Amino acid sequence: MNERLLREEIRDVPEYVPGKSIEEVKKEYGLKNVIKLASNENPYGPSEKVFEEIRRGDWKLNRYPPVEVPELKVRVGEYTGCNPDQIVFGAGVDGVLETLFKLFCRKGDEILIPIPTFPYYEILTRVYGGKPVFVRRDKKYDVTAEMIESRISRKTKMIILCSPNNPTGNSIPNEELSEVLESTSAIVIVDEAYAEFADWNALSLAGKFDNLILTRTFSKAFGLAGLRIGYGILPDWIVPHYMRVNPPFSLGTLSISCALKALEDLDHVSRTVEKIKEDREWLLRKVPFRAFPSQANFFMMDTTPYTADELSEKLLRKGIIIRNLSGFRGTDGHMVRISVGREEENRKLIEAMEEIA
Amino acid sequence: MNERLLREEIRDVPEYVPGKSIEEVKKEYGLKNVIKLASNENPYGPSEKVFEEIRRGDWKLNRYPPVEVPELKVRVGEYTGCNPDQIVFGAGVDGVLETLFKLFCRKGDEILIPIPTFPYYEILTRVYGGKPVFVRRDKKYDVTAEMIESRISRKTKMIILCSPNNPTGNSIPNEELSEVLESTSAIVIVDEAYAEFADWNALSLAGKFDNLILTRTFSKAFGLAGLRIGYGILPDWIVPHYMRVNPPFSLGTLSISCALKALEDLDHVSRTVEKIKEDREWLLRKVPFRAFPSQANFFMMDTTPYTADELSEKLLRKGIIIRNLSGFRGTDGHMVRISVGREEENRKLIEAMEEIA
Repeated sequence: MNERLLREEIRDVPEYVPGKSIEEVKKEYGLKNVIKLASNENPYGPSEKVFEEIRRGDWKLNRYPPVEVPELKVRVGEYTGCNPDQIVFGAGVDGVLETLFKLFCRKGDEILIPIPTFPYYEILTRVYGGKPVFVRRDKKYDVTAEMIESRISRKTKMIILCSPNNPTGNSIPNEELSEVLESTSAIVIVDEAYAEFADWNALSLAGKFDNLILTRTFSKAFGLAGLRIGYGILPDWIVPHYMRVNPPFSLGTLSISCALKALEDLDHVSRTVEKIKEDREWLLRKVPFRAFPSQANFFMMDTTPYTADELSEKLLRKGIIIRNLSGFRGTDGHMVRISVGREEENRKLIEAMEEIA
Repeated sequence: MNERLLREEIRDVPEYVPGKSIEEVKKEYGLKNVIKLASNENPYGPSEKVFEEIRRGDWKLNRYPPVEVPELKVRVGEYTGCNPDQIVFGAGVDGVLETLFKLFCRKGDEILIPIPTFPYYEILTRVYGGKPVFVRRDKKYDVTAEMIESRISRKTKMIILCSPNNPTGNSIPNEELSEVLESTSAIVIVDEAYAEFADWNALSLAGKFDNLILTRTFSKAFGLAGLRIGYGILPDWIVPHYMRVNPPFSLGTLSISCALKALEDLDHVSRTVEKIKEDREWLLRKVPFRAFPSQANFFMMDTTPYTADELSEKLLRKGIIIRNLSGFRGTDGHMVRISVGREEENRKLIEAMEEIA
């Protein structure tokens, strides 16, 4: 039709394929009880303080949300130990990343992406006309400074490291990260969406490097995926540019208030994070397939002797949705990702897998 | 610092300057009562059904919102009389427009923008590397098909018509719009954010032209600016591309549910829209300056003999925030925009202006 009007880059953009929803699976498989361990959500949800805040009810929904959120900056600054002036917000990590692509990604710029990883990095790279350079992680799915440095060219604009990495669950050591940061002037984005579940994080490096950006979220440990709240910790010089290019009302009114309330109850966050970590280790011991160690609220698993398609389908029939990684670049069709659920969900998963294995 | 890493286009992007908030004005001017008639919000807010929905409280906030919102599509289809398959959503009109720029705006593409108008069109054009071509509206701030056609070139990719136009308040007649649509294969976006307050709209043309896009919102007539819900009515061929490029979770969980509830109470919308239209006409009769006729929930006013800066400042001192249009391209420093408020707010405005004039 008028397709020639579209930007060429758009045609190469892979479709974002969300997992099946509980409702879809109930209908398709004629099941009454379906559990979803596929989207790395926090099964315990946010603090009760968040619900109290929502029920307050005197929301000025007819008013635009504020463009500047100074109190939220201060609270996130306290939570992370970072300077509030370095903190910016967006509609989830997705929104923060998109604004960073708008700032930095020229047509033809190379974006280094160790794979397998979160597919949205490639989608954004293609939408913004960049050239994804995929660095294959080693057999243990680790990525070293050396592996990255060997792929840096004069065209490298950004390096995107997911840590802990979705879907493999491992984190990049700070020594390796520092080495990368020192070896290049390209922008290094460390996506720490799952940092609260990990044994270490890169906060101690924030502010020390002119080219280090951390992205984080309220969607995982804080249990607020439905409200779309992400943040970035940027070097000073990027902040004013970010503010100029980020959509002015990227956080809704309720999202801002709920994020503040969630930060008032860090005990709730610690409790649910600790429980999820314990249950992750329990699952890793129990699964009758080869699972990879993880620092996140999910883990990757090799489905051999089945293919990932086969195992996913068998579990769907038993009312369990997991993430089939066959569509993830850099996997071989035998990998799935499983989110840690509530105790009873985890038990149901293990029973189902034992029957299958 | 590392500013050479930034895309060149970013340096030309004008800063988005939001109006002063009520809190800022209270502090700065030492005032107890401040009213804001500056952001074209609906002073009556959304239906009570929306608040009941929010207070329900059993929100699955830890779950990601759905990527597809079939029920909302059907309801918006019923509301607009359009085919649900043609309807797409985004984080406000801003979000819908941004996805359209990602789809269509190549570096160097010309984007036709009749001015004065909503400044965000220029911001997006520059962010996405397009070249804004400003078409100056005539003395009555009308724009004709002829004026637009005379500026169309082979590089013209999009034409953005705000109707009713922010800040001038006038709508483009459908005959003129049809003429534009027939004269070009460029994408014509009609931003109908304020359509509910107007005497006519372009819905009858949706689906009839391959190059017509309408953008609309729940932020104005529906009183839900705080929840960031916009929608587009697209020709069929654009829909799958839009879905591929739009951020997957552009509407939060509460936003989706509240939009559905707001659509259940169209009586509330009609009542508040009618009241606002009546009060707009009352204001237009009463203001002691030259005001322009309007089909929106605001109107533009010539502040002569004062400058717009002077009148805005005088009103601020009296606790009234209006929109100074001096920063809007295509105005001459004597124009302000005033949103219709509640009766008591409108009376306060008229009293204050009478004292000043």
